[in-house]
Amino acid sequence: MATFNESAAGVYLITVTPFASDGALDLDSTDRMVDSYLERGVDGLTILGIMGEATKLTADESRRFAQRVIDRVDGRVPVIVGASAPGFAPMRELTAAVMDMGASGVMVAPAPNLRTDDQIVAYFDMVAETLGPDVPWVLQDHPVSTGVQMSTGVILKIIGNSPTCVMLKHEDSPGLAKLSAIRAASARGDVRRVAILAGNGGGLFLPEELTRGADGAMTGFAYPEMMVGVCRAHAAGDIEAAHDIFDAYLPLARYEQQTNIGLAVRKHIMADRGMIASATVRRPGPALSASDIADIARLTRRQERRLAELGRPS
Amino acid sequence: MATFNESAAGVYLITVTPFASDGALDLDSTDRMVDSYLERGVDGLTILGIMGEATKLTADESRRFAQRVIDRVDGRVPVIVGASAPGFAPMRELTAAVMDMGASGVMVAPAPNLRTDDQIVAYFDMVAETLGPDVPWVLQDHPVSTGVQMSTGVILKIIGNSPTCVMLKHEDSPGLAKLSAIRAASARGDVRRVAILAGNGGGLFLPEELTRGADGAMTGFAYPEMMVGVCRAHAAGDIEAAHDIFDAYLPLARYEQQTNIGLAVRKHIMADRGMIASATVRRPGPALSASDIADIARLTRRQERRLAELGRPS
Amino acid sequence: MATFNESAAGVYLITVTPFASDGALDLDSTDRMVDSYLERGVDGLTILGIMGEATKLTADESRRFAQRVIDRVDGRVPVIVGASAPGFAPMRELTAAVMDMGASGVMVAPAPNLRTDDQIVAYFDMVAETLGPDVPWVLQDHPVSTGVQMSTGVILKIIGNSPTCVMLKHEDSPGLAKLSAIRAASARGDVRRVAILAGNGGGLFLPEELTRGADGAMTGFAYPEMMVGVCRAHAAGDIEAAHDIFDAYLPLARYEQQTNIGLAVRKHIMADRGMIASATVRRPGPALSASDIADIARLTRRQERRLAELGRPS
Amino acid sequence: MATFNESAAGVYLITVTPFASDGALDLDSTDRMVDSYLERGVDGLTILGIMGEATKLTADESRRFAQRVIDRVDGRVPVIVGASAPGFAPMRELTAAVMDMGASGVMVAPAPNLRTDDQIVAYFDMVAETLGPDVPWVLQDHPVSTGVQMSTGVILKIIGNSPTCVMLKHEDSPGLAKLSAIRAASARGDVRRVAILAGNGGGLFLPEELTRGADGAMTGFAYPEMMVGVCRAHAAGDIEAAHDIFDAYLPLARYEQQTNIGLAVRKHIMADRGMIASATVRRPGPALSASDIADIARLTRRQERRLAELGRPS
Repeated sequence: MATFNESAAGVYLITVTPFASDGALDLDSTDRMVDSYLERGVDGLTILGIMGEATKLTADESRRFAQRVIDRVDGRVPVIVGASAPGFAPMRELTAAVMDMGASGVMVAPAPNLRTDDQIVAYFDMVAETLGPDVPWVLQDHPVSTGVQMSTGVILKIIGNSPTCVMLKHEDSPGLAKLSAIRAASARGDVRRVAILAGNGGGLFLPEELTRGADGAMTGFAYPEMMVGVCRAHAAGDIEAAHDIFDAYLPLARYEQQTNIGLAVRKHIMADRGMIASATVRRPGPALSASDIADIARLTRRQERRLAELGRPS
Repeated sequence: MATFNESAAGVYLITVTPFASDGALDLDSTDRMVDSYLERGVDGLTILGIMGEATKLTADESRRFAQRVIDRVDGRVPVIVGASAPGFAPMRELTAAVMDMGASGVMVAPAPNLRTDDQIVAYFDMVAETLGPDVPWVLQDHPVSTGVQMSTGVILKIIGNSPTCVMLKHEDSPGLAKLSAIRAASARGDVRRVAILAGNGGGLFLPEELTRGADGAMTGFAYPEMMVGVCRAHAAGDIEAAHDIFDAYLPLARYEQQTNIGLAVRKHIMADRGMIASATVRRPGPALSASDIADIARLTRRQERRLAELGRPS
Repeated sequence: MATFNESAAGVYLITVTPFASDGALDLDSTDRMVDSYLERGVDGLTILGIMGEATKLTADESRRFAQRVIDRVDGRVPVIVGASAPGFAPMRELTAAVMDMGASGVMVAPAPNLRTDDQIVAYFDMVAETLGPDVPWVLQDHPVSTGVQMSTGVILKIIGNSPTCVMLKHEDSPGLAKLSAIRAASARGDVRRVAILAGNGGGLFLPEELTRGADGAMTGFAYPEMMVGVCRAHAAGDIEAAHDIFDAYLPLARYEQQTNIGLAVRKHIMADRGMIASATVRRPGPALSASDIADIARLTRRQERRLAELGRPS
Repeated sequence: MATFNESAAGVYLITVTPFASDGALDLDSTDRMVDSYLERGVDGLTILGIMGEATKLTADESRRFAQRVIDRVDGRVPVIVGASAPGFAPMRELTAAVMDMGASGVMVAPAPNLRTDDQIVAYFDMVAETLGPDVPWVLQDHPVSTGVQMSTGVILKIIGNSPTCVMLKHEDSPGLAKLSAIRAASARGDVRRVAILAGNGGGLFLPEELTRGADGAMTGFAYPEMMVGVCRAHAAGDIEAAHDIFDAYLPLARYEQQTNIGLAVRKHIMADRGMIASATVRRPGPALSASDIADIARLTRRQERRLAELGRPS
């Protein structure tokens, strides 16, 4: 198992879950997808998240998919598994299973009904107790999907209460101010420094988030080379180059962020690039129209042209 | 103007706004309604709340109605005016207008988009500044309509920050534990003691709320004598009598609490009792079917019978 | 397996899931609970619903509990299993498993993200296809928990589209008008007549719902004899007796309907009555205070007194 | 008053409401803002929308602002006024007032509590009746702010029911499929053709929306020349040029679309460009940090450079 702790950085790619055109789990495509991500230089994988259609899998399918990914990665990078669940018994069971398989950690978002600061802090105290002292975990802050808003103070308290919380997946919006405030708190020594990976709007604010102190990205855009390129340019101190790369991919990344059809767009591009065999999304889920596909084709052509102008292969 | 401060107690009746059958504001019925409430022994009136169809009135109608109520009450009991508004400029304007007319205070609920503890406390700091140092105000805690959950800690902070906050209208559910905790805090001297009037579920938990330390009720059931009777029996130390009165009215009170048609039920009964001329609810709003009216008739007959058994006039 | 079809009627009791004080599944109490429900005359059981803490069970625990209930019932009454799930693969898997065990049918609520009429109808077309042609199912209309509002027209369309939908669990509020409209539609021959069991507000509108044409109740109040008594009196044509029984239990039933602590109240009473060994609710979940327990004790004493006045054993 | 009907097209700019640094309404800046929009070639103005902080104005301020804009425009382009209100009496009152002043029409979004198709259609029947036979109006479809999802069928029904509904402001997401379906319906003759102006994500999908048949844009990005340029290039048949212009502004437009601080970003840029005197947003509202301002400065510099490469003045 690859090490996963507070010093994690770079691009943790949120994977899709590949299905065959009949809707069956496609494990061959799983291998191909993992290879294609690793070849493009990602630093970790996150599986069984919302964009991984986790809730549409049976318990058995979840485990077979996780096992396949972990086996294929074979310890080269950490594999993080989404473990959010409405109850702690299934959270504990899934966590134990994937850690046994060789996962490096899990990711947990707040339950959707939480509202007050006290409720949220108490919830994550129970999460930490459920996961136990040996499982490093990622705190996922994603109000758009959960409806739960965590203030900076709440996040600092959760980090303070749970030594095994090693990373924040930052997806709140407006989130730049929160990101700055968390970094300031650890700079002052108020709280342990944890890794922060950015995912706001599917990566649509990545250059700004890196400037505010994010250690990288955790998102799933169909062109991982965008996130890898932006993070590397930023790490090398070339902020303008980071923006250049980002801007070249932005029109298509924006198109992939449409609510609901976004996952279908992502899988269409991935199938087109040969990363998976079929763009199938399990029901209930979106399908693309001919017009959508024409839009993607135009944006892809324009993206290739722009990348060529920048002297980057596409 | 009648005095309104932390020592307020008893029944503050949430009034409806009477309309003629053509939808016009009915000021004659306003007088009759005020008289009928005062005759039944209420200790205060609250106008222009949600059940007063405040948002369906023009600014001019709101003022004419408020003026009429305040004039008719003529200082005998405090009149509180709902002043929640999406912006502070209209809140300040309405507050100034009704205080000039002789209102005793205003009531403000949190804006619906607030989520974190800090956001809520900051919001009420701005409310207090908007209302100024001379306007006593009621903090309305009504998550069902606002979507905002205020923890005990947040409520104590708001009370601590604003010396002019003199009352909590308690409508959270489950709220009995919160009520106990706020009372314990003022008993310990952690915070100034404010009045707490209960309204949880339209008064459906009144006996239990009084036992936990509520000073009375702020709700609008069409039989104010229920709330007055329960509060007086409780104040006299006769808890079982308080429950007896409550239980006699409970089947109809429950029927009046149906989401959406509740206001139509309330106005129907009030018109039936001669408290207002017409049961008209402004559009968009519910209307009763013949079956609804038959239900109310049956429940009213049964209520009269039960009150007779208890030796109470109906 | 007991027959379950459009002619179902009476009381289908929503069961809790008993846990030992350490949180483990308590299968002995499961037997005792099943026996106590059947002794009180219920006509069916519904398991693994929201009040059954279904989401807090592991997949394996869900199956062991379902198996135990079905075995204990031994075909005497139908057992319905909650099968709502965020994806169709887990819905299909759970349904196949419990039907194999001897369940009589399943219950499905709409997914929380559905909004438009078309979306809801399309969703249940997929549900019907997922369940297959041999599984009778209950359409659960519960906007308070799902956030989905189904119009009368949508419900009629779902019934029309799916011959295996044999029952509506009616929990919308205001729901009396909707109940009347659905009954009128089947009386006119617009749609097949399905069974309708009422659960609005945990049974708090049961007498009125029966008058509007409901065939019984599906709810979980800790005194099943209330629902059984009301339904039997109503079926015998004695509407006033039905109300008398209902009113006697109403103060406690109302207390059990408090948001969040309701389940803890129910389990406390059930433990007190010897129906289960422990009142334990799995985390995250509510716990009762001494004041809550005192409230319940007072309401129970008053209920016993009132039932004695009515000449009914308690 | 400028004509406003189904043949409207081009860019209808959603204006901000300028405030002085002390929060007072700034009518001089209002003139300057109107001039700057008209100089940049917009085809209409929409005032008192969400981004116009309408709810933070007193009734009197709303009228003074509307009067000033309408006077300054002086009939050169249509002025549309946001008239959404929780009740029909205030909607009627505001509409009558602004039409008297010379507005060309109003815009109405669905009330936030509407859910079923029938509820939405019935609501807009009442809206049409409230506005009367002489006021052209825009149907605003903005689920992100209202929570109301209107299916294509519902929109077609509203258009069919109300001859005075002349425009759809399209802001749903995913909205491209809906836009295509509405255009197909009017092409088939199923429904009268109305104007459709796009505003999805603040204009972030403008090129694609024009390709699907939108007649222009209704949004408020601080660079109106982006929308004007894209619409004109598209109208001239140069789709690639439309995308080139769009892409040049996209990084900054995206930054302006951040939830909550978006309006502060917009006003900051407008103040910087001299379109208004102060970037003040009324409380409760966001303020920018030094880091936010540095982000905007960098994005602005990059945007100027990119526009220069394209041979366009900035």
